[in-house]
Amino acid sequence: MSSDLLIAKIREKHCPCCVGLDTRPEYIPAPLVEETRAALTGPADAAALYAEAAYRFNVRVIDAVADLIPAIGLQCSHYDLYGPAGAEAMRRTILYAHEKGLYVILDGKRNDVGIVAEACADSLFGGVQLGDERYLPYPTDAVTVESYPGSDGIKPFLKYCDKHMIFVMTRSTGKNAYEIQELVAGDRALYRVIASRIERWGADSVGEYGYSSVGAVVGATSPRSLGELRASCRRTFLLVPGYGAQGGDGESVRYAFDSDGRGALVSASRSVLTAWKKRVGDGEGFENAARDAVLRMRRDVLANVTVL
Amino acid sequence: MSSDLLIAKIREKHCPCCVGLDTRPEYIPAPLVEETRAALTGPADAAALYAEAAYRFNVRVIDAVADLIPAIGLQCSHYDLYGPAGAEAMRRTILYAHEKGLYVILDGKRNDVGIVAEACADSLFGGVQLGDERYLPYPTDAVTVESYPGSDGIKPFLKYCDKHMIFVMTRSTGKNAYEIQELVAGDRALYRVIASRIERWGADSVGEYGYSSVGAVVGATSPRSLGELRASCRRTFLLVPGYGAQGGDGESVRYAFDSDGRGALVSASRSVLTAWKKRVGDGEGFENAARDAVLRMRRDVLANVTVL
Repeated sequence: MSSDLLIAKIREKHCPCCVGLDTRPEYIPAPLVEETRAALTGPADAAALYAEAAYRFNVRVIDAVADLIPAIGLQCSHYDLYGPAGAEAMRRTILYAHEKGLYVILDGKRNDVGIVAEACADSLFGGVQLGDERYLPYPTDAVTVESYPGSDGIKPFLKYCDKHMIFVMTRSTGKNAYEIQELVAGDRALYRVIASRIERWGADSVGEYGYSSVGAVVGATSPRSLGELRASCRRTFLLVPGYGAQGGDGESVRYAFDSDGRGALVSASRSVLTAWKKRVGDGEGFENAARDAVLRMRRDVLANVTVL
Repeated sequence: MSSDLLIAKIREKHCPCCVGLDTRPEYIPAPLVEETRAALTGPADAAALYAEAAYRFNVRVIDAVADLIPAIGLQCSHYDLYGPAGAEAMRRTILYAHEKGLYVILDGKRNDVGIVAEACADSLFGGVQLGDERYLPYPTDAVTVESYPGSDGIKPFLKYCDKHMIFVMTRSTGKNAYEIQELVAGDRALYRVIASRIERWGADSVGEYGYSSVGAVVGATSPRSLGELRASCRRTFLLVPGYGAQGGDGESVRYAFDSDGRGALVSASRSVLTAWKKRVGDGEGFENAARDAVLRMRRDVLANVTVL
């Protein structure tokens, strides 16, 4: 099961942390943009130039942290900023991360029913038939999906859950997440109802470590929710965004882990990618700044969680 | 307000119907693929070939129906099937539809908070700064978004709601939509709670016809929901997918309209794009088949709704 693969990578690196390569244009240091401009042969429009610079930024960050972390994430919307060239940068980043042995989670918040959900699953996991060729556009290990369509939106992914994972949006990081997510449905908050559905959707894909291929996204900004869900949904692996810039820290994420130090992956993005902005200079050495930020994050998380 | 623009286009065409250009590879007739292959200069991989064929398919369908309908939709996940070349086909389709005076709705089900939601809004509505250049990757009129993150996921779009619309997922078309959407929160089903939030999110963008720029997506497969929401959310424009292949018809969608025949746009995709498959031959004349399907849909809807 795919959760075993993720957990094995976490154990190998002794680190339950993930870097979200949400590479926005303003995160790319000016010298790297200029270096990219000089390296490109022929004229390139701004979108092509910045998308290529984003890809190069990602490669260098991956090279700087690949020995430390088991997984990277990619938020699709940030790549949309570069248009179609951004889709290519995202695809190449996925391929490069796989070359480096990293588990790749596409933070796409996919959400639809029927043939649309099948199209999502095909473009990420199964591949699509184009004439005589089989094509897999964005070969990721896992994707974030929405719960709102119910099982109509989840089932098309489940058939791939021997080799892939999905993480269902459960508790987002925003300060107004409560508006919908804490509405009381029956005797529980909505996000807890959804968590119990996730627990059921994962029933047929439980791996060796006891976790299924259907995980939940629960923000680092809600330590109480992390603790509740860790206790009540024992086979649901938690993907925990919002460490760092959004306010989560080692103390808040510790509740996401079981007593063996398993069951969660903590993700940071901005605090790693923009660490160079806290240093003097124009961003030369951004890779080292990213590496230092990951080392700090790892130390902070491991100070609060014993990972076996 | 952007709802006025959409309603003006509906009135001009005397047709509250939209075609979803969800152009999957198997919808493209073989002769068009071959014609595309012959037209391409230089070698093209399967993804580039089929993405170009999808674009050409879209152009011909648009040419065949542009005088009949006010708007087209595009479901992003189907373009992901072609990888980055699909993103380019989607972008070019948006530009072509605008040339033909059509209102363009991106069915992206965007859903996130903070800077991710801002990135979505920038890539579709506002544009992004890339060095000295301003770039607008996917210049759409409207986008579908999720409600689950609450106002954190909606507010980044609201600042564009003088010129753009968002449609918030409220009731999906799947047969298990009830699982989450009909959970009772307080005294009402969840989708009705969300509809009343939508009504409030739209309070500052009400146009001349009384409709706001914050609409709701409610499937044609739920006539009861359409009627309830039409009655209780008077300023919320309804985007109604699921006509045709998914089971909606003129009789079921009539409940989405107000007594002036306004307040809703009905969308069909598969039944229009694959209409050629019901004819003999290998898809020559798919444009006429699509046009006939749109004419039938329009007749069916107008038989049930008097559009002013």
